[in-house]
Amino acid sequence: MEPIKNLPRLCRTLGYEFKNIDLLTHALTHRSASSKHNERLEFLGDSILSIVISDALYHQFPKVTEGDLSRMRSTLVKGETLTVIAKEFKLGDYLYLGPGELKSGGFRRESILADAVEAIIGAIYLDADIETCRRLLLTWYKQRLAEIKPGINQKDPKTILQEYLQGYKKPLPEYNVVDVKGDAHNQTFTVECRISELDKVVTGVSTSRRKAEQLAAAQVLELINK
Amino acid sequence: MEPIKNLPRLCRTLGYEFKNIDLLTHALTHRSASSKHNERLEFLGDSILSIVISDALYHQFPKVTEGDLSRMRSTLVKGETLTVIAKEFKLGDYLYLGPGELKSGGFRRESILADAVEAIIGAIYLDADIETCRRLLLTWYKQRLAEIKPGINQKDPKTILQEYLQGYKKPLPEYNVVDVKGDAHNQTFTVECRISELDKVVTGVSTSRRKAEQLAAAQVLELINK
Repeated sequence: MEPIKNLPRLCRTLGYEFKNIDLLTHALTHRSASSKHNERLEFLGDSILSIVISDALYHQFPKVTEGDLSRMRSTLVKGETLTVIAKEFKLGDYLYLGPGELKSGGFRRESILADAVEAIIGAIYLDADIETCRRLLLTWYKQRLAEIKPGINQKDPKTILQEYLQGYKKPLPEYNVVDVKGDAHNQTFTVECRISELDKVVTGVSTSRRKAEQLAAAQVLELINK
Repeated sequence: MEPIKNLPRLCRTLGYEFKNIDLLTHALTHRSASSKHNERLEFLGDSILSIVISDALYHQFPKVTEGDLSRMRSTLVKGETLTVIAKEFKLGDYLYLGPGELKSGGFRRESILADAVEAIIGAIYLDADIETCRRLLLTWYKQRLAEIKPGINQKDPKTILQEYLQGYKKPLPEYNVVDVKGDAHNQTFTVECRISELDKVVTGVSTSRRKAEQLAAAQVLELINK
């Protein structure tokens, strides 16, 4: 038997007292532990986090473009950030995991932690309301919102790939449009991205050349595990 | 000079009376018409739409998996759906566009319309609050929410590609894992998707084989313009 989790302690850490503590248990339950798992709550929490952060950034940066707002939002809501928050909350001590997942580590463990943060947000929303979520999330994100700036640390895949290669003094990636299909207003671009250390060519396909390049670069980054 | 837009009529169509009508003008202004354009409002509106639809689906389908909820949400908030809503509102009559965009048609025009719907949602949020947005959006989406069902019309790229090829009595796509990198818990899969009518091979790269296949299929679909 697993030891009983100290949920009141977790509530103190989160800064929120659940009226219905079963919702918190539900949010902490991974699909490996029970069929009553946290994925539906995660679905809700993801959208709540998005509107709270979007609203905060919109007002905090009244002159910044939509592109920069989107990049800052991505930085604040992405899995890696949520994993950091989960670790600050020591969420790993409270998760309900099946026997297989208890031993898992690395990326898999990190994404379970990130998902649980979203599920907890969903649970608080159901237990209270969106304004309660907002107040709480702004506390959780206080430091991160204070530190975030438009245009830096919001790098796109092409930039990350270029800097990574430069760091190892490798040649820069080569992007080539290998195919364009469709009418002037409805084109599809296929772009290849080649880097010297990969013996394969990765392609990105999208409605703009720029997006196709980014898509190809993103896949190269996955491939080199960056 | 452009004719003056009948904004009170648009408000009646939307079912919302703006306290600050400038917000509506702002939401209708494409970047081609003015530097005070609607993209920041669109950024906000996108998240508001997402939480309202997520919450509605969560309660409407208490037993449906997160995957099905996500697919239904995508169907309801995607560009094509927003374009249909924009056309129901005859939004094209009210947009402020620059001279270049006035004549544009097809995909470009459709995405301007879809973006304007999101911007209007953002404007209503700023003019009122999230509960007002919720009530209004649930009216706009009443029929669509009544009709949506889990598991149908929510097809993933592999399914769409397969059915498309079957429709033309073509051979089915072939998926091959061409590369696996990383440790057991932190793998990256590269999957090729080949179809007989394309002389090129498209690859998808992701942390699971299934996701990589979907990514490759999605790119093939873009390429054949489906």
